[in-house]
Amino acid sequence: MSVKSLNDLFIDILKDTYDAEKRIVKALPKLKKAATSPDLKQAFESHLEETKGQVERLEQIFDILGKPKRGKTCPAMEGLIEEGAETIEEVKAGPVLDAALIACAQKVEHYEIAAYGTLATYAKMMKMDDCLKLLKETLSEEKDTDGKLTKLAESINFDAEVVASR
Amino acid sequence: MSVKSLNDLFIDILKDTYDAEKRIVKALPKLKKAATSPDLKQAFESHLEETKGQVERLEQIFDILGKPKRGKTCPAMEGLIEEGAETIEEVKAGPVLDAALIACAQKVEHYEIAAYGTLATYAKMMKMDDCLKLLKETLSEEKDTDGKLTKLAESINFDAEVVASR
Repeated sequence: MSVKSLNDLFIDILKDTYDAEKRIVKALPKLKKAATSPDLKQAFESHLEETKGQVERLEQIFDILGKPKRGKTCPAMEGLIEEGAETIEEVKAGPVLDAALIACAQKVEHYEIAAYGTLATYAKMMKMDDCLKLLKETLSEEKDTDGKLTKLAESINFDAEVVASR
Repeated sequence: MSVKSLNDLFIDILKDTYDAEKRIVKALPKLKKAATSPDLKQAFESHLEETKGQVERLEQIFDILGKPKRGKTCPAMEGLIEEGAETIEEVKAGPVLDAALIACAQKVEHYEIAAYGTLATYAKMMKMDDCLKLLKETLSEEKDTDGKLTKLAESINFDAEVVASR
């Protein structure tokens, strides 16, 4: 029973999210490599740079709290990334794999939206204004990325359907 | 390479989601048992009943497509549920654990929102109107559950913070 207060819980989820983000930094180049669409490759590349910035924001929060920058294995992100690896093995490269990669990436985004949403709620309640500002910046980026992927999916999924109906 | 068309991909994600929902049916009673707040216990109980209905909707879709009702191990949901089990071990029972359980449940909801969002998009593109109707019903329920958990979190997190500051 190491977590006894809302502050402990905040730090626990922060460590989980730090681990998750670092796993995403390692996974994104694999998604980019597997993608065919130049637009999707570019989207993964941009999101990699953005994710590196999100890792830095989490490090700033550890500094603000005077805590070591240490992650804690995030089994959910391990599973999400395993799902991405399985997808690359099982789906034929081209528009269908591109559609599948977007589906995987949106699941990752939704994990992060939930995590940062929770962290921002706790930071607000505990009046940690500096942390809240950083968390909101990342939350807003994650929602934007999810929206961009939805738009990209519209054209890419269409290509996938054309392949299917041939 | 077993997935070659958008239709194959739709069925693949359907199987993954079917496995995920059945894992959630098994996990929810554990979350309910670990919760302290009667409102949260009730929310998990209601969501269990709702999830059983969502499993049935997926079975209806398998029937519509003439496919066997067969799941495919969903590593992401395995990870999400492992995270919930770790939370129950690590967080002190009471309002702080209640807040942590809500955070876990919202991550699960967001996984499902992403999964059903993707399935609904594909069903719409492939003009599978009967499937689309069922998927939209579940998607709407998942979003409502996420919203209810956010509201519940507001009161429960407050209790957790009071504990922290004592």
